[in-house]
Formats: sequence, structure tokens, C-alpha cells
Amino acid sequence: MVVLGIDPGIAICGYGVINEKGKIEVIDYGIIETKREISKPQRLKRVFEGYLELIEKFNPDAIAVEELFFNKNAKTAITVGEARGVALLAASLKGVEIYEYTPLQIKQMVVGYGRAKKNQIQEMTRVILNLKELPKPDDAADALAVALCHLFYKNIEKLYGV
Amino acid sequence: MVVLGIDPGIAICGYGVINEKGKIEVIDYGIIETKREISKPQRLKRVFEGYLELIEKFNPDAIAVEELFFNKNAKTAITVGEARGVALLAASLKGVEIYEYTPLQIKQMVVGYGRAKKNQIQEMTRVILNLKELPKPDDAADALAVALCHLFYKNIEKLYGV
Repeated sequence: MVVLGIDPGIAICGYGVINEKGKIEVIDYGIIETKREISKPQRLKRVFEGYLELIEKFNPDAIAVEELFFNKNAKTAITVGEARGVALLAASLKGVEIYEYTPLQIKQMVVGYGRAKKNQIQEMTRVILNLKELPKPDDAADALAVALCHLFYKNIEKLYGV
Repeated sequence: MVVLGIDPGIAICGYGVINEKGKIEVIDYGIIETKREISKPQRLKRVFEGYLELIEKFNPDAIAVEELFFNKNAKTAITVGEARGVALLAASLKGVEIYEYTPLQIKQMVVGYGRAKKNQIQEMTRVILNLKELPKPDDAADALAVALCHLFYKNIEKLYGV
């Protein structure tokens, strides 16, 4: 099962592709970047096309994305929403199921408890995926973590028939 | 000059198409609706395809959309952002310029002062567009108002070379 994890954004979108075939392996990870100088609609277009390319290239069985909650700046929340909307749309247009996980679910699945710190999630992601170094930048690491979360979630579903 | 105004949303998106050719006339207005029962990515897809159809049908010179600021619920802000992102993307993919106006700009342009109430904006929109009745539902009326705002803004630019 191939899972594409996405950490949506307009300036930087992280992505991580993992595969479970007996063992779990990393296929690819990285970021899609857009420049500040171009307009927001153009940036969204670039990001959207990036998602479509990733889906075409890796043909994932599922896409996983973090479901964010903001208390802080509502303007930031709208911008984050714009980037997320484009990710959900790309998945929908390509007919790939997309799953949303809260930060709590990601922590519980990847680290085992819901109060894990960011560096603990990254370190666990590195260990589970047998990587020598922490995936960089953070956006790519976050994307790998949400992909792992989906994989674990599906495995638990299979095991317990939840 | 044909302007497509959009009031983005996931459940209901309002749209309004106006044309200025000597006088200002309404070409069309209405809503794109999606059902609660289908998944969010599917709803975004439906809305996105609706935008693409509108752009193909009316071939607008510009698209205008309200720039929203929220103080209230950040979760709502993210959902609104998701719907807006898809609108900005549709415009960008079709190569149509998209303009964002704040509620204050819309009030100033359509009614003439920034503290106008919602029903005043709707009434002014109705009068300017020579409609016998208020455009219904509110989402369509809001879309017509933001389209008008863009038209007036462009006219002022032309007049004063702002």
C-alpha cells in the first residue's frame, strides 16, 4: 500500500511517499516551493500541479493530510485552508481517497501517546522508516509522519475490524 | 467588460455575472450547491467544476471574490479557506485575473460608505442592476455585489489613473 502524506502550504508544501509491502519503506519525500513574488492564485496553481504530478508519479492508494486547528490568527487559518482545499481537490479529481488526521491522532499513532513533542514525532518517524538522518525540512518530515499515521491506522482497522 | 463575482462556500457558492457595455447589465446569477452527504473532497470537486463551467460559459474578463476576515471560529475560517482556494485555483488555471475585495471596499464601492448594512448593499445592488426584486439567495446577491465592486473599482482606476 502506497501512501502519500501531504503537509499543505502556499509557500512550502511538504510531501512524503511511503510503501508497505511486508516492511515499510520510504519512496520519496521533499517539498513543493512557490515564490513570494508571484500572485496567490498562481502559487495555488503551482502547488496544485505539483500535487497532480506526485499522484501521477507515485499512484498512491491513499493520501493523508493533517487536519489543523488554529486558535491564533484567523487570517492564517484562511490561507492554510486555501492550500488545503487545493490538496483535497487534487486527490478528488484523481479519484484517490484522502484522509484527514488531527495532530493528536498523528502523535498517538506514530509515537504512541498524544502529548508527544514535535521532535519526538520526527525522531520516531526517522526510526520507523530506517532513515539515517531526520528528513529535512520539517514540512517533509511532517508529511512522512501523517503518511505513517494513515498506514498504522489502516493496520489497526484490519487487525481489530474497527 | 464581463465580471464574474463569486461568494465561495462548500455547501453553497453564490455567483453573479455582470457586463458593462455602456450600461451595466446582469447576465446571470445563482448558486452552486453541494450535498452534505458527500465527502468534503467530493464537494470541493463539484464546486471547482462549477467554477470551470461558469468561466467557460461566460468567458469573464475578471473574477472578483470577497476577501474575508474572521475573528470567530478558526475551524470555519479553514473551511472557508478551502472553498476560496478552489475558486482562486479555477481562475488561475483558466488564466483569468482574480481580484479580492474586503467587505469594507465592497461597501464603499457599492453603497458609498463603509458602514453600510448588509440589506443596504443588497438594495443598492438591486437598484444599480435594475432588478425588480432582490437577487435570491443571499449568496447570489453577495456575488453580484462583489462583481459590481470590481467594475466600479476599475472605472475609478480609469478615471483617476490610480
